[in-house]
Amino acid sequence: MIDYNILETIENHRSVRYFKPEPLPTEDVDTMMRLAQRASSGGMAQVYSVIRITDPALRERISRRIGQPVVRRAAEYFIFCMDIHRMRRLLAHRGAKLGMGPLIALIYGIIDCCLSSSSMALAAEAMGYGICYVGAVQRALEDLVVELELPEGVLPLLSLCVGVPDEDAPLRPRLPTDIVFHENVYREPTEADLERCYEAMASATFFGGWFEYLDNFFTAGKEFAGRDGLWTTALARQGLSLDEEAKP
Amino acid sequence: MIDYNILETIENHRSVRYFKPEPLPTEDVDTMMRLAQRASSGGMAQVYSVIRITDPALRERISRRIGQPVVRRAAEYFIFCMDIHRMRRLLAHRGAKLGMGPLIALIYGIIDCCLSSSSMALAAEAMGYGICYVGAVQRALEDLVVELELPEGVLPLLSLCVGVPDEDAPLRPRLPTDIVFHENVYREPTEADLERCYEAMASATFFGGWFEYLDNFFTAGKEFAGRDGLWTTALARQGLSLDEEAKP
Repeated sequence: MIDYNILETIENHRSVRYFKPEPLPTEDVDTMMRLAQRASSGGMAQVYSVIRITDPALRERISRRIGQPVVRRAAEYFIFCMDIHRMRRLLAHRGAKLGMGPLIALIYGIIDCCLSSSSMALAAEAMGYGICYVGAVQRALEDLVVELELPEGVLPLLSLCVGVPDEDAPLRPRLPTDIVFHENVYREPTEADLERCYEAMASATFFGGWFEYLDNFFTAGKEFAGRDGLWTTALARQGLSLDEEAKP
Repeated sequence: MIDYNILETIENHRSVRYFKPEPLPTEDVDTMMRLAQRASSGGMAQVYSVIRITDPALRERISRRIGQPVVRRAAEYFIFCMDIHRMRRLLAHRGAKLGMGPLIALIYGIIDCCLSSSSMALAAEAMGYGICYVGAVQRALEDLVVELELPEGVLPLLSLCVGVPDEDAPLRPRLPTDIVFHENVYREPTEADLERCYEAMASATFFGGWFEYLDNFFTAGKEFAGRDGLWTTALARQGLSLDEEAKP
């Protein structure tokens, strides 16, 4: 028996950036948090922590610092962090030492953050709420370490806004399925395929084509160009320098 | 109006490792692939590719190589790869150069792989299928680069088995919610909290407690101890060396 409702929820997923100033019932927030935890986790390790930001002043500071007003407007705001610190303490509690290097800790931390946030996002959407991922927490890794009092081994990765939608957010296009999915071997896109990508994504923005949008983030000197440095510094600060061996 | 069915699907998520030898209808596979693409993607960039493994001989080789028989037993098997190669080509198609460093490419690639695989997994579960994530593809990064003919900028991250369940897979426990979720600041777990973690996870395995399970993966000299080296080598091979600046 196919549950068409959940398929529709997944299909209709969109980012909502304007919310009504209505709080969410505690019961719904509890459900979202519980369902976030039901996601798969590599090695059942659950190497992530989620900081729920309920303090309005803190919310305001984060919103300004990362340049994302949506953080202020949402009823609920959750910051998903990789957390190898708790695993280190759990092992130490039984007299053992963590043997993971920083790179694999980062990779598994990201996986756990993403899978749990995805379950939370879909649960929220199923309950009729709007959601918006905010990856821009990565702009302020070091400030957030201080604000959220994160110990070594813990770093913010992405964040999720949830609230009652106050806009009819558009469904965004996606790349052609035959370009994202390959069969048995990677199929190199032709120039015609690349053109089809731009055509498929043409309605992605209001202010221009998809290229103009990508150009804001992915080309030399733009948004993502400086992120490697921010990450490298923040990882080192949190005892996860990629140049070092695993710390006990 | 709350859709309780989707909440139930998320809540009942479990890993299935035994499948009936029944193929999936093409329509269902198409739906899964389409819904995988509906997931959020940072900067709408969709820097991931999915390789659907339909060749039985290739499936057999991968299954043996990574030591995961479930890969052979599932009706469908998808390998999710970070893919900065297509983004590089898309930008070049419009005369621009990619300006992302390898670390941020890895991070955004992982995020896209996880969010899309999560949408696919929940869609499959909503259709009544069983799913199992297989992260062990990371044991064979370089072999998979060759087998799947992955160009520079593309690396496998995780994989997903889907099929008709042939077992009544158990619902696994999770850590206490108050330990994973924090409010405004990180709350350091007490020794009593750590003990509660082990108690909550006690039913996670059949062969012993949670510690014995973790000890197989996370302590010195075990499964994850060698993964940093595998990743570092594979990243360098794929033009994503973490020591270098972003390649144009």
